[in-house]
Amino acid sequence: MSNFGFYRLRVVNPYEIAFREARSAVNASKVLEAAEEFASVAAAVADCGWVVGTTAVGDRHLQHPLLQLDQGAGEKIREHLQSDRVALLFGSEKFGLSNEDFSHCHCLLHIPTQDDHLSMNLGQAVAVCLYELARRSSKTEARAEPVKLAAAEEVERITKKLLDVLAKSEFAIRGSAAEGEERIRRLVHRMHLTAGDAEMWLGILRQILWRLDREGR
Amino acid sequence: MSNFGFYRLRVVNPYEIAFREARSAVNASKVLEAAEEFASVAAAVADCGWVVGTTAVGDRHLQHPLLQLDQGAGEKIREHLQSDRVALLFGSEKFGLSNEDFSHCHCLLHIPTQDDHLSMNLGQAVAVCLYELARRSSKTEARAEPVKLAAAEEVERITKKLLDVLAKSEFAIRGSAAEGEERIRRLVHRMHLTAGDAEMWLGILRQILWRLDREGR
Repeated sequence: MSNFGFYRLRVVNPYEIAFREARSAVNASKVLEAAEEFASVAAAVADCGWVVGTTAVGDRHLQHPLLQLDQGAGEKIREHLQSDRVALLFGSEKFGLSNEDFSHCHCLLHIPTQDDHLSMNLGQAVAVCLYELARRSSKTEARAEPVKLAAAEEVERITKKLLDVLAKSEFAIRGSAAEGEERIRRLVHRMHLTAGDAEMWLGILRQILWRLDREGR
Repeated sequence: MSNFGFYRLRVVNPYEIAFREARSAVNASKVLEAAEEFASVAAAVADCGWVVGTTAVGDRHLQHPLLQLDQGAGEKIREHLQSDRVALLFGSEKFGLSNEDFSHCHCLLHIPTQDDHLSMNLGQAVAVCLYELARRSSKTEARAEPVKLAAAEEVERITKKLLDVLAKSEFAIRGSAAEGEERIRRLVHRMHLTAGDAEMWLGILRQILWRLDREGR
C-alpha cells in the first residue's frame, strides 16, 4: 500500500491474535499500525461514497457493473476519488468476498488473469490494483531520460577509424571498396551511439590502430 | 506468474535448502516445479535476446535506458517478445540487483513507487510487472517488421573478444579489472546488436585479434 501512496487500511473482523501480533511487530509498517478495525463490512465502508469489491471471477456477478482493471477501471476509480471517499474491498485469501459483502458494493473490479489461475495471492492482488490506481496518466507522455546522441560527424569519424582498423587487419568486406564502406557506415549507425559512447569507441579504435601500426613497422 | 500466463522461472544461485523445500512442497505450483537453476546471471540469460533488469531506483543507473512500467514499458517489452526471448531480471528482496547483474541487461525497468517507499516486496513487484505485460492492448497497432536481436550469449562472446582486443592493445580502462569488464559489457549491450550485426562484429574482432597476435609474435 505505501509503495503506491495508499495509507488507510481498514480491517473487518480480523483473526485477533495474528492481527495484534502483526501490528505490534518491531518492523510493522505505519499503515498496519494505523489500521482501523471494524466488526462488519457495513461499518467499515460507512463513510465511503463509492465501494468497489474485487473478484477473481470475471462474469458471475451480473447484479453489479463490472470494471476490468486493465480496461479503464483506474480512470473510473480516480474520477470518483476526486469527489468521494472510495473503498476498495478485498476478501480473505481463501474465500474471497461473499454475496453479502458484494451487496455493499457499487461495482465490482476484476483483475484479468489466466483462466486456469484465476485466484491471486491477496498481497499481490492489492499491489496490482493500487499500482493501476497510482498509474500516471498516459497523457503526460512517456519521457525516457533524454540521452544525448553522438553528432553525425562523430559517427563518421568512428566509421573512418573502424575502416582503417579493418584495412590494417586485412579484414575482407564483401563487394567493392565503396560498398564495403557503406556497409561499415550502416553498421556503425545502427549502434545508435550516445555522445559518451562515441568518445569511448573512438578511443578504443585509436588505441587498436596505434598498436597495429607499432607492430606493423 | 501463472496468474498472468508466465511459466518459465529461472533461479540464479538460490539458497539451496529453502529452494528444494519450496519445490517439493505438496502444493508447489507447476512454475516452481519446472523452475530451472543456474549458477550465474550470464548462464541464466544466455539464450535471451533482450534482458530487462528491474530496479527500485528511478534515476541512478544512467548507463542504461530506463523504462517506466506505467509509461509504455509493457508495449516495448511485448514488442521484443514478438521476435526475442526476453528475460525479466529481479534481484533478491534484500539487495536488489548488483552492478554486475545490471551489466548483463539491455535496459532497466522501474516500477514507479512513492519516494518514501521505493522498495517493493519481491512477489508483489513480480505480480505488478507481469500484470502490466499481460495487459490487453487497448489498440492493436500495426508494427514494423520485428528485428531479431542477438542472444545474450552472443553479446557475451563479443564482450569477451573485445576485452581480449583491448588487453592486447594495452587499452587502459578506468577502475579495477572487474569494473573495466562491466563497463565494456555495458558498452556492448548498448549497441543493441541484431543477430546479423553480432556475427559481423564477432568476425571483425576475431580478425583484429588474429592480426594483433600475428604481429605480436
